[in-house]
Amino acid sequence: MSNQLHRSKLLSLFEDSEEGIIYLKGAELMYRYATDYEFPFRQESNFWYLTGVNEPGYHAILDIKSGEYHLFTPKRDSQFAVWHGRIKPMEEIQDLYEPDHLHYDNQLLSVLNELDSDKIYCLDEEQAEYLEDLNRDFNLEIDTLVDAITYCRCIKTDYELDLMRRAAEVNNIAHREVMKSVKPGMYEHEAKAIFDYHQEKHGLLQPAYTGIHAGGVNSAILHYVENNQKIKDGDLYLIDAGFEYEGYASDFTRTYPINGKFSSDQAKIYQVVLEALNKSIDKTEPGVKMEELHLNACRIILGGLKDIGVVKGDLEEMMDNDIFALFFPHGLGHFLGLDTHDVGGYPKGVERIERPGIKYLRVRRELIPGMVITIEPGIYFIPALLKPALEDEEKSKFLNKEKVKSLFDFGGIRIEDNLIITEDGYENLTDVPKEIGDIEDMMR
Amino acid sequence: MSNQLHRSKLLSLFEDSEEGIIYLKGAELMYRYATDYEFPFRQESNFWYLTGVNEPGYHAILDIKSGEYHLFTPKRDSQFAVWHGRIKPMEEIQDLYEPDHLHYDNQLLSVLNELDSDKIYCLDEEQAEYLEDLNRDFNLEIDTLVDAITYCRCIKTDYELDLMRRAAEVNNIAHREVMKSVKPGMYEHEAKAIFDYHQEKHGLLQPAYTGIHAGGVNSAILHYVENNQKIKDGDLYLIDAGFEYEGYASDFTRTYPINGKFSSDQAKIYQVVLEALNKSIDKTEPGVKMEELHLNACRIILGGLKDIGVVKGDLEEMMDNDIFALFFPHGLGHFLGLDTHDVGGYPKGVERIERPGIKYLRVRRELIPGMVITIEPGIYFIPALLKPALEDEEKSKFLNKEKVKSLFDFGGIRIEDNLIITEDGYENLTDVPKEIGDIEDMMR
Repeated sequence: MSNQLHRSKLLSLFEDSEEGIIYLKGAELMYRYATDYEFPFRQESNFWYLTGVNEPGYHAILDIKSGEYHLFTPKRDSQFAVWHGRIKPMEEIQDLYEPDHLHYDNQLLSVLNELDSDKIYCLDEEQAEYLEDLNRDFNLEIDTLVDAITYCRCIKTDYELDLMRRAAEVNNIAHREVMKSVKPGMYEHEAKAIFDYHQEKHGLLQPAYTGIHAGGVNSAILHYVENNQKIKDGDLYLIDAGFEYEGYASDFTRTYPINGKFSSDQAKIYQVVLEALNKSIDKTEPGVKMEELHLNACRIILGGLKDIGVVKGDLEEMMDNDIFALFFPHGLGHFLGLDTHDVGGYPKGVERIERPGIKYLRVRRELIPGMVITIEPGIYFIPALLKPALEDEEKSKFLNKEKVKSLFDFGGIRIEDNLIITEDGYENLTDVPKEIGDIEDMMR
Repeated sequence: MSNQLHRSKLLSLFEDSEEGIIYLKGAELMYRYATDYEFPFRQESNFWYLTGVNEPGYHAILDIKSGEYHLFTPKRDSQFAVWHGRIKPMEEIQDLYEPDHLHYDNQLLSVLNELDSDKIYCLDEEQAEYLEDLNRDFNLEIDTLVDAITYCRCIKTDYELDLMRRAAEVNNIAHREVMKSVKPGMYEHEAKAIFDYHQEKHGLLQPAYTGIHAGGVNSAILHYVENNQKIKDGDLYLIDAGFEYEGYASDFTRTYPINGKFSSDQAKIYQVVLEALNKSIDKTEPGVKMEELHLNACRIILGGLKDIGVVKGDLEEMMDNDIFALFFPHGLGHFLGLDTHDVGGYPKGVERIERPGIKYLRVRRELIPGMVITIEPGIYFIPALLKPALEDEEKSKFLNKEKVKSLFDFGGIRIEDNLIITEDGYENLTDVPKEIGDIEDMMR
């Protein structure tokens, strides 16, 4: 069990002499409202990270001074075996998760009392309240633990990177299969069906997020989830989707014409986004800051839109006036891991930049080997953003009104790869055609 | 909008002179723990039933005396349009949902104050607390409304039955396609991938429950959800799965040999379950009680197991000793509708029967036209139940020890159809081969 490494990493952040213990409550089953509709179980990410346990009803304690790891498993009765399957014997649980001490969950209070610790570090108020209900005298602290685990989770261990490579490997297959299969007249949910099929076929049953399968104007809706419209000949199709492997997310986006052949406008705008992606990837290496990459991508996007005649004027003046955010209103990328928008993008003291577009950037940090990030520039024609801008005195002077209006039905283009930061640059986990020629070849 | 019919039905249960109003809060988006992982939105069933609205953030009020229907829609800003899509104009929402009065949600308190009602009926404590936080002086009542809506939801309107027929129609296709495609050596998740593909292809994106795809011994685990094992030649494969159409569930089960040919033991035991299913269906008509059907099925199962030599002794004596529950430990069926285990199985005052097996029966009512039920007998060889029974003095004398033990690896067989209760009997929504010959033909 490689989660031992994760526990050691966490413990190394505390003083050796520290008299405290760390408590974590694993997730319970979740139900839909007041019904018995059960969501597929998925462990809470911090608990999964430290224990490797993906079953409901567990608890864990780490004794900081001794380094000892206590795991608590729910006591099941024979009814459980009838409805939910074989009850694992304690020996099997011991072998699987390798705690120093394995207990039934009804022993939690007595073990806590026995450890008699000066301080109990909890993840959040809810988990602290759970312990407070067991014993009002516990000294509970909730400010430290979440930051400490987050610090650990940002830099992936080799064990984690292998799981992420596997998630990406299957995602590469699924994205390629969709690219080969879609046709004009298909519904968005038919494309989704193909994508999900290839994930599930390979054993990935949990989407990393609600996939976006957007045809035509829907491709300009950043978090489109309806996935129920027909994709017409001539339309773009944007697919932003990935599944989890052992909890670890993959998150790729591709955009291509549903009929397999880029129109002149589609090709021109696509090429700008692709350049922003490729140049951002080229610059990716330890020490680079995500906000630098973001602003660099914005500059490429504006330059490209100027060449096409969508915007006009001096590039730096356009940058100063945040014109990029009218076409690229989201962040360039985010951390990826046990959560799709993984933790740690903003360490304590670092605030969001209050500027259009960049304020949605989810990471503002220098890159370090072992981080995993997405790079996902885009260009969208979103009437809700562009119409007010065309009316705005400051912004409208940078816009070629007729050209912008002619593209209101264009939709949007986003291209997204996943990168591991390495000592000398990056490892790109995404292997799905993105050059225009390669896409057209695959769709032929 | 046929939900007008549902609102009238509900209002008809209250006195015309009643001065109260009915308040319902629609569901909000749900997130996974403390992350931004959003579950696909799915309206709370009672709200969906009365309003037809499947979007987050709505509220509804029914004025009992005037019969007027107020709907409250969330006010969206332009950022919403960028991230989540076009904001529907009020006229469009009005046309779509046809309330008597359409308001923004920030008007909720002022409308409630204006209506100045003697009493506000709420669905549950949580919704009542929401109103209490708005105004401590409201007179809130939570005992009546849930029973009244449940009473309505039990008997489906024609509009609902059409939606359920469509959910079943797609489920028939998906079950047939899996039956045609599975092969020995496939993993359970590969079978699931095929099933989910055909649902999504037809636009059904929401599972009605976590599907069970169970090979070999896993087929004897009633709520098996892991779906990650290889299905070996000679094994049975049990599929219990269905998706929602416009919120309405379908829920079919089939069990068949993964290699397409029933072995002698498989055929004999299958035939007993099939007889229990077919005879239960034959008896289904208005006026029949579910517990009668259940006990009748138990009798057929015991008779069949006696013929095969699994159990021995006098049938009535075995019935009296609940021997059926060792092989058929769950209920014969349940209501089906906006929830898979739909509401209303136990009207006020009717209690569960404290007897093995039947105590899990989810419906104890006389059948009425318009009800929709499942019929799902099964025979399972569950060591966790059978081992203690073999040690039990009372029970073991009815068991042929060697035969029972030889079947510990058999797994389980369940066959499940969905029926609408009609004036003169039933309409069977399930059309997937279940006779041995038909299954073997389809798998050839």
